[in-house]
Amino acid sequence: MHRTHTCGEITENNINLKVALCGWVNKRRDFGKIIFIDLRDRFGLIQLVIDTEKLNSEEIKSLRNEWVIKSHGIVRKRSPGMENRNLKTGNIEIDVLSIEILSESKTPPFSIFEDNTVTNEELRLKYRFLDIRRKEIQEKIILRSNVAFQVRKVLTENNFIEVTTPVLCKSTPEGARDYLVPSRLFGGNFYALPQSPQLFKQLLMIGGIDRYFQLPICFRDEDPRADRQPEFTQIDIEMSFAEKEDLFKIAESMVKEIFKNTINEDVKIPISKMFYHDALEKYGTDKPDLRFGMELIRIEDILKKSTFQIFLDSLKEGAIIKAINVKCGSNFSRKNLDEFTTIVKSFGLKGLTFIKKAQNEISSSILKFLDEKVIKDLEERLQIEDGDLIIIACDKEDIVNKSLDHLRRKIAKDKNLCKEDDFKFVWIVDFPLFELDKENNTLSACHHPFTSPREVDLKLLDSEPLKAKAEAYDLVLNGYEIAGGSKRIFRSDIQKKIFSLLNLTDNDIEEKFGFFIEALKYGTPPHLGIAFGFDRLMMLLTKTENIRDVIAFPKTLKGLDLMMNSPSFVNEKQLSELSIKTTKQEDIHWQ
Amino acid sequence: MHRTHTCGEITENNINLKVALCGWVNKRRDFGKIIFIDLRDRFGLIQLVIDTEKLNSEEIKSLRNEWVIKSHGIVRKRSPGMENRNLKTGNIEIDVLSIEILSESKTPPFSIFEDNTVTNEELRLKYRFLDIRRKEIQEKIILRSNVAFQVRKVLTENNFIEVTTPVLCKSTPEGARDYLVPSRLFGGNFYALPQSPQLFKQLLMIGGIDRYFQLPICFRDEDPRADRQPEFTQIDIEMSFAEKEDLFKIAESMVKEIFKNTINEDVKIPISKMFYHDALEKYGTDKPDLRFGMELIRIEDILKKSTFQIFLDSLKEGAIIKAINVKCGSNFSRKNLDEFTTIVKSFGLKGLTFIKKAQNEISSSILKFLDEKVIKDLEERLQIEDGDLIIIACDKEDIVNKSLDHLRRKIAKDKNLCKEDDFKFVWIVDFPLFELDKENNTLSACHHPFTSPREVDLKLLDSEPLKAKAEAYDLVLNGYEIAGGSKRIFRSDIQKKIFSLLNLTDNDIEEKFGFFIEALKYGTPPHLGIAFGFDRLMMLLTKTENIRDVIAFPKTLKGLDLMMNSPSFVNEKQLSELSIKTTKQEDIHWQ
Repeated sequence: MHRTHTCGEITENNINLKVALCGWVNKRRDFGKIIFIDLRDRFGLIQLVIDTEKLNSEEIKSLRNEWVIKSHGIVRKRSPGMENRNLKTGNIEIDVLSIEILSESKTPPFSIFEDNTVTNEELRLKYRFLDIRRKEIQEKIILRSNVAFQVRKVLTENNFIEVTTPVLCKSTPEGARDYLVPSRLFGGNFYALPQSPQLFKQLLMIGGIDRYFQLPICFRDEDPRADRQPEFTQIDIEMSFAEKEDLFKIAESMVKEIFKNTINEDVKIPISKMFYHDALEKYGTDKPDLRFGMELIRIEDILKKSTFQIFLDSLKEGAIIKAINVKCGSNFSRKNLDEFTTIVKSFGLKGLTFIKKAQNEISSSILKFLDEKVIKDLEERLQIEDGDLIIIACDKEDIVNKSLDHLRRKIAKDKNLCKEDDFKFVWIVDFPLFELDKENNTLSACHHPFTSPREVDLKLLDSEPLKAKAEAYDLVLNGYEIAGGSKRIFRSDIQKKIFSLLNLTDNDIEEKFGFFIEALKYGTPPHLGIAFGFDRLMMLLTKTENIRDVIAFPKTLKGLDLMMNSPSFVNEKQLSELSIKTTKQEDIHWQ
Repeated sequence: MHRTHTCGEITENNINLKVALCGWVNKRRDFGKIIFIDLRDRFGLIQLVIDTEKLNSEEIKSLRNEWVIKSHGIVRKRSPGMENRNLKTGNIEIDVLSIEILSESKTPPFSIFEDNTVTNEELRLKYRFLDIRRKEIQEKIILRSNVAFQVRKVLTENNFIEVTTPVLCKSTPEGARDYLVPSRLFGGNFYALPQSPQLFKQLLMIGGIDRYFQLPICFRDEDPRADRQPEFTQIDIEMSFAEKEDLFKIAESMVKEIFKNTINEDVKIPISKMFYHDALEKYGTDKPDLRFGMELIRIEDILKKSTFQIFLDSLKEGAIIKAINVKCGSNFSRKNLDEFTTIVKSFGLKGLTFIKKAQNEISSSILKFLDEKVIKDLEERLQIEDGDLIIIACDKEDIVNKSLDHLRRKIAKDKNLCKEDDFKFVWIVDFPLFELDKENNTLSACHHPFTSPREVDLKLLDSEPLKAKAEAYDLVLNGYEIAGGSKRIFRSDIQKKIFSLLNLTDNDIEEKFGFFIEALKYGTPPHLGIAFGFDRLMMLLTKTENIRDVIAFPKTLKGLDLMMNSPSFVNEKQLSELSIKTTKQEDIHWQ
C-alpha cells in the first residue's frame, strides 16, 4: 500500500509511530544539515524533517515544489518553540527515514498559494487542474459534494425518489435558446439538451411517482452574463397530492439541514412570507435583500403638496415618487451623489433628488419648493434624523423601483451593512401569472407556462388575464432568488388555454406539447414543485461572487473551455455522418 | 392538506381513525347497494367501501379506472372471511364518508395491471407516463433510486468527493462516435457529449482531489444494439495513492452494501480473482458465468492419438480442441444437436463433434477413430458418467472459445441451471494491454489508452507490445461485465508512447490530448479507478433482460423517444444561428 495515513490525520496520538505518507511538496527549506518539507494532500499539511547527515541523497536535494513524493518516517513532537499554531499538525513533525519521488513537476505557471485575485483568471482556467490544488477552490468543491449529499439524504428520508431524466430531449424553444444535437440515424432531425426537466417531472407525477427529485444538469444557449454558465445544476423537486405548505416545509427543512451541516448556520424556520406586491412596494424588487433597512417609502401624497413643478407634472402623467433614507448618509460627497445619478440613468430615471439633514439643518436643491408642513410630513414619514440622506426618485413605477432597488443594494455594499454570516430568507408569494411584453403587446409567463393560476382567478383568464395571480413561490436569500416553485396546471383544458394566451398557435401547441396536453387527460394528480439553482446556492454558501469558483471545470463567459480548447472543429466525416454542413469556420483565438 | 395518509401505510392500528386518502381508482366493483373501490398510490392499495344508501351520488357511479379521487372515511376491520391475504392492507377497509373527483381519465390504451409482455412495447413507450404506473416498472425506478443513494452513502463515508464534470466537452473520436453540439457563438465549432469523464477524473486526481466519484450520464452514438441506449449512466470512481487492493476493497464493500440493503442478498467478500488467461481457457470468455460448471477442457493431446483425419489435419494447422461435458445431456435430440451446430457456425466453426454415454455405452460418429486408450483418457479427463453428452470443438483458439462459451451459456439457460438469486462475482485480472486489429494489422487498446501497463512490462512496449499486460481489473457478475477498472498511466512519456503505439500521429496527439499530456507533467499522483455500468447493474438487480425497464424515460433501439417524438425537425432560425445547414430531411414515421 502506498500510504498508512493522510497528511492531515496525524496527531500527537501517533507519536513514535512509523508512517508512510504521500503528497505534494508544498514548500522546501534547505538549511544544509536539515531540510524541511511541508507535505500537502487534500486532508492537510505536515512537516517532514530530513537530517542530511543520516539521509543524504541527491534526490532529496533535487525536490521542488509540487513534486509528488512518498515518505517513511517516525512521528515526533516538535521541539519546544517550534510549534506552528496555524497548522492542525503544528505540534508534530515526521523524522524522515526515506523519501521516494513518485512524480516530478514542471514549475507551475502560477503559485498554488497565491490568492485567487492575484492570478489572471484565464490562466487559472487553462491550468484548472492546478487551480483545483488551491485550498480555496478545493474547499468549495468538497463543500459542494457535501451539500449535494445532504440534499439527497433529506429528500430520501422524506420518501422522495431520485429519477434521472433524459439529456437527449426535444427542442421546444421558448425564451432561451436550445442547444441542439444532430441525429445521425435520422438526418435533418435534432435532439435538444434540456433547459429543465419540467415536462419529465410532471410526467412522473402523472405516472404516480408521487415524490420525485433530481440534481439535473440543465442547458441554455443564452448570451454571456457574468453569473451564467451554459450548463448549470438544479435541485429539482416535485410532489403530488400536496399543498404549498407541504412544499414550504420540505424546502425549508432541506435548507436548514444544508446550512447546519455544512457551514453550521441555524436557519430559522418557518421562513416568513412576503407578497410579491409588498416586495415591490417596499424594496422595488421581487428579490429583496432583508439584511438591512432602507426600505422604499412612497411619498407622492406628500410631494403633490409641494410647488416643485417637475414632480407635479410627472405626477399628472402617472409617475410615482418613492424615497429611501440612508442613515448617516449626509456625509456622502458630491462625487458619491453624482455616481448614484449616473447609475439610475441606466434604468431610465432622469435624475435623483436629495435631501440632507446635517447639524439639524435640512438642505436640498428643492428646499424652496417645500413648505414647513411638507417638510414636517417628510420628516415624519421617512423618520429623518440628524445625519440622514434622503434619496428621492420620481418616474414610472418600474423605473423608480429598479433604480432605488439598485441604489439601496449598492449603498449597503459600499457601507458594509451586510454581515458575512447573515442569511435572511424570505418566500415571495402571490406573483402575477402573466406580464405584459410591451414591445409586442403580448402576454408572457411570469414563471413558466406550466404554473397554475390561483383557483379563484381562473375566471380572469378570459377577461383580465394580467390580473390573475399565480400559485408561484420564490425563495429569496440575501437578494438572490435561490429557488422558484409553483403549483402546476393539472387540467388539460387550462394548460391549453394558457398556451393560447401566450400566443402559441394550435399548431405550435400540438407539435411541441400535444403529447403533454394528451397525457394530462389520463388521471393527473394535483402536483407542485420547486427548483433550486444549485450553483447560485453554492455561491452564497461559499461567499463567492464568481460562479466559476463553485464549478469544478467551468467555462468562460463565452462558453469556452480554456483547458481542453473546446468547442473545436470536427472532421468532415463526422459532419457528413450527421447530415450537416457548416456555413462558417470561425477560428477561436485561444490564450 | 390533501391527504392524511398514503394508501399503503394504513394498518389495523388506525381502526376507527378518520382519514383522507388520495389516489387512482385501480378497480371498481358495483353491487348496487355497495360499491367497492380499490384505491392505489405508490405506497399501496386499499379498499374503499361505499354504502350507496348513505352516500348516493351520480359522481360515484361515474368513477372509472385511473380517475384520481380524494376520499374521507373511517378505517374499519373487514368482516370475517372478507380479508385479502395478498394485500398489505387486506384486513382493513375504509368506510367512505365522501368522495371528490380530482381528475378524470380517458380509458388507457393498455391495462395498468397486465403483465409487461402482453402489451406491445412501442405502445408502452409512447404512453410511458402510464407504463410507469405499473408496479413492475415503478418498483424498478424506486430500486434504482435506492441503489444510487446506497452508492453515494458508501462512497461519501469513505471520503470520496462527488464532482460533476462537464457535459459540453471536446470531441476526441476514437472507437465510438461522439454526439456533437454546434456552438452558436463560434460558428463551425462543436462541443461533444462525453463518452465518459475519463480525462476529467484524471485531472481531478492531478488536482489533488484524492478520491472522486460521480454518477455521470455518458453518450455514445453507436449503432443500435439491444442492451444499449444512446445515453447511459456510470458509477465512476477514481482514487490517488492507492493500490489495486484498495480499489477492490472499496468496490466490493459498495457492491455488498447495495445487494444487502436493496435486495437483501449477502455478497461474500473478498471476491475471488481469475486471470484473464484462465478465464479464456476454462470458459472461453473474459466474462465467465460461474453459476454452473461445464468448463471448457482441452483435449488435443488426447485426440492427436486418434485416427480421425480431420482433427489431425487441423491440429497440424495450429487448431486446438476443447470439449464441454453436458451432464444428463445424452437425451438431447438430434434436433437439439443440429441447433447447436447452427449456432456455432455463426462464429465460424465448421462443426461440432458429439460423444454420448447412455446405458453405459459410448456412442459417437467418430467412435471408429478412437481406440480404447483414447476413450479411456477422454473418460478420465472429461469425467464422463452415464447420461453425459460431450461436445467437442476443433478450430482456431478464438473460434473454439467463442463457440463453446456461447453453447455453454445457452445450454445452462435451456436446462435452467441458474437459480434466480444466485449471484456469482469474479474479478478478471492480468488482461493484455493491446489486442491486434487483424483487419488493419494495428494495435488497439484492450481497455482504453489510459490504462497502465504493468511496471514489469514497460520494457515490452518497444519490442513485443502484444505481450505486455495491463493493470486492468474487470468485475464480472453472472456472465456480465458490471465494472471495468484500471491503474492509469501517470507518466507523460508513457502516455505519449501508448498513443503512438495506437497509431495516433504526433499531430493527433497534440490536438486531442496535448493539454492532458502536458497536465501529467505537473506532479501527477499514481492513481486508479473503476466505472460500473449502472444500467447493467440495475438490470441484474431487478432480474430483467430489457434495459428499458430500468430507465425512467428510455429510447428505442434507434434512439427515438416515442413519447415526445424526438428527435425532430427544428426551425431555420435555429439552424442559421448555429451556422449549420442540413443535407437531408428524413421523415420519421412515428407509431
